[in-house]
Amino acid sequence: MTAEILAVGSELLTPQRVDTNSLYLTQKLNELGVEVTGKGIVGDDRARLAEAIGEARGRAPLVILSGGLGPTEDDVTRDAAATALGRRLEFHQEALDAMEARFRAFGRPMAAINRRQAYILEGAEMLPNGRGTAPGQWYADPKGVLMLLPGPPHELQAMFEQQCIPRLKNVVPPQHIATRQLRVAGMPESDLDQLIAPIYTRYQNPATTILAAPGDIQVHFRGRGSTEAEARAAVEEVSRQVEAALGDRVYSRNGESLEEVVGRLLQARGATLAVAESCTGGLLAERITSVEGSSRYFAGGWVSYTNRFKIGRLGVKQQTLEAHGAVSPEVAREMAEAARSAAETTLGVSVTGVAGPTPDAGPGAAGPKPAGLVYIAVADAAGCQVQERKFLGERERVRWQASQVALDLIRRKLG
Amino acid sequence: MTAEILAVGSELLTPQRVDTNSLYLTQKLNELGVEVTGKGIVGDDRARLAEAIGEARGRAPLVILSGGLGPTEDDVTRDAAATALGRRLEFHQEALDAMEARFRAFGRPMAAINRRQAYILEGAEMLPNGRGTAPGQWYADPKGVLMLLPGPPHELQAMFEQQCIPRLKNVVPPQHIATRQLRVAGMPESDLDQLIAPIYTRYQNPATTILAAPGDIQVHFRGRGSTEAEARAAVEEVSRQVEAALGDRVYSRNGESLEEVVGRLLQARGATLAVAESCTGGLLAERITSVEGSSRYFAGGWVSYTNRFKIGRLGVKQQTLEAHGAVSPEVAREMAEAARSAAETTLGVSVTGVAGPTPDAGPGAAGPKPAGLVYIAVADAAGCQVQERKFLGERERVRWQASQVALDLIRRKLG
Repeated sequence: MTAEILAVGSELLTPQRVDTNSLYLTQKLNELGVEVTGKGIVGDDRARLAEAIGEARGRAPLVILSGGLGPTEDDVTRDAAATALGRRLEFHQEALDAMEARFRAFGRPMAAINRRQAYILEGAEMLPNGRGTAPGQWYADPKGVLMLLPGPPHELQAMFEQQCIPRLKNVVPPQHIATRQLRVAGMPESDLDQLIAPIYTRYQNPATTILAAPGDIQVHFRGRGSTEAEARAAVEEVSRQVEAALGDRVYSRNGESLEEVVGRLLQARGATLAVAESCTGGLLAERITSVEGSSRYFAGGWVSYTNRFKIGRLGVKQQTLEAHGAVSPEVAREMAEAARSAAETTLGVSVTGVAGPTPDAGPGAAGPKPAGLVYIAVADAAGCQVQERKFLGERERVRWQASQVALDLIRRKLG
Repeated sequence: MTAEILAVGSELLTPQRVDTNSLYLTQKLNELGVEVTGKGIVGDDRARLAEAIGEARGRAPLVILSGGLGPTEDDVTRDAAATALGRRLEFHQEALDAMEARFRAFGRPMAAINRRQAYILEGAEMLPNGRGTAPGQWYADPKGVLMLLPGPPHELQAMFEQQCIPRLKNVVPPQHIATRQLRVAGMPESDLDQLIAPIYTRYQNPATTILAAPGDIQVHFRGRGSTEAEARAAVEEVSRQVEAALGDRVYSRNGESLEEVVGRLLQARGATLAVAESCTGGLLAERITSVEGSSRYFAGGWVSYTNRFKIGRLGVKQQTLEAHGAVSPEVAREMAEAARSAAETTLGVSVTGVAGPTPDAGPGAAGPKPAGLVYIAVADAAGCQVQERKFLGERERVRWQASQVALDLIRRKLG
């Protein structure tokens, strides 16, 4: 079975915005055995969108629209779909009630124009939106299915997952799919590919895909079979060999993020954590606390951005700073140990470095230190380990990679 | 004048790949005064691509194709364009010679299949490729222009810059473009639109686009004119009225981010800043320090995640925590004042709240507090202001909106 995806919105025809909803949708459709055969991007133009919907329905039995369901004049998806299908839009009190309840729950008045969002295609099912005001729509006729989904990714994803996938399973011929995802920290993509390409290129099934971000690589396997066992066996055969080749660089086998793995390990060991950051400026703490329930193992942290703060608030020795500079293994060590001791935690972790882009940027470099130079320290009852790294790239990329290495060191310490 | 862009390649219909060539092309076209009115992504399917080219040419005088010009069976762009135009493909010895010279220069033998790339549409101009083997093509007839460009971005960009832009200048009526961008914090999109739609909808020129993220909205104006002054006047007329309607909610007129505006204002006032965060977990400090040179005004911060840390490390009073709970205006106030006093800064800012998703999640809620409830405090020499907010959505979204409000309060304090 095939699908076409239409993203709606004039902002998607500017140089700034790219449609990413279709990537999520494609992944979910592929998992059901549906191939995406075309994608289109249409501005806020009712007539053109109606035409595009008609054309897409002429080619594919599943057509998915994202965006254009808001309350403003520019939101033309409902009207365009009605034109394309030759159907009326009907007012749904139920949809309006849900919107009003949502606004009430947050103690805000609902603007009158939101009423527009309560119009549903004649014959369509309304898809409730748990994360926003615009309801989605599911319209099915002998020609195929048309789905209208909201544009904001977190709304679209929740709605597709909860409302569309169960309905699609009644429409799409069953095919068994098994997937596995290995995540690897701190390895360049080319090194990883050289190591594992000799394995995965020998197999058509599963399909193997590598997604690389700086310091973080995902290896996806997607196996197909006429039974679930067959699909799983295909994945198993290849992923086992790839895992063996990658060893302990693999931090997750089930989609868990590195911060989730670290949180799970800390809880399992009954351990607690405090951090002291300089160049990452709060990013390490932010990533750790992005995990729900992190207050069970994360005590807190210091963003010790100036030397004065490092000395006065965190307890780094002035003479250490003067002798070695803020970006040094000695200061990294004192920061990690100070964090651990002041917060009374099992582990103390620190990051100090030059985020860049200028070599002398970053706080308190006593001597000139190059952009990208970072020291990361992990202290526990047994002592303190310090690592030196040199990262390439922009400020944001250096900071992100430094937080990645810090998290991976915690993982290895606990693993 | 309008253009449509078609990206060709089955890899662009996978969950991993997104077409980015169209962003570059859109920017360059906009600079010439050309609007992109639609984009499409087509797989390696000759018949479907021929149909898509014909449809696009029926709608827009400029049609640009990227990709599908390689030497393999899967590269169908030449054939599809020939079918769509009803033109033959002609062998160009000149194109083959250029390819052979390129291979020779790299000391490699040219495979026989590369010969396919030397076929050019009858009546088209060959566009030499300085960075790869596939030549591009420029085909013009009374209906419009069709451009065939290679898929790799560095090849496409060089070819478009050197070969297409000079030709387009002879085709596109000369037009001047002026732009302005207003950024607004802490206002729901529907409220903003209700306020400013009565203004901007009265004008076709400039074009007004609204890009909304939670707690952050961009309003883009793009004016056209036969002179630069005319284009600028069109933008000025509308943006002035919109600015007046939005008042001090506008934090930037030139594309500066909120963290950059805050940094600039702190420097201009010779002021310094420290933060104490609970539910944002380091995000506020991370955003402040994402700005290069932030060490000139940012002293540091505390991520006081547990009550014990709030009391022991930051100096919040135990009885305040017990009487009001960690998520309370009283604790927000003590956190902001403690940060300011300990770091000896001009301003101290704090955030405490329930990031969610569960109501009792978040550190140390003495009584039950709903997810999304956040207190933000700003302390200076004159005293301390506290704001209560209730944010919608997921954990990450609540945290981001809380950091946004905190930054906006600092801006207003300094403004």
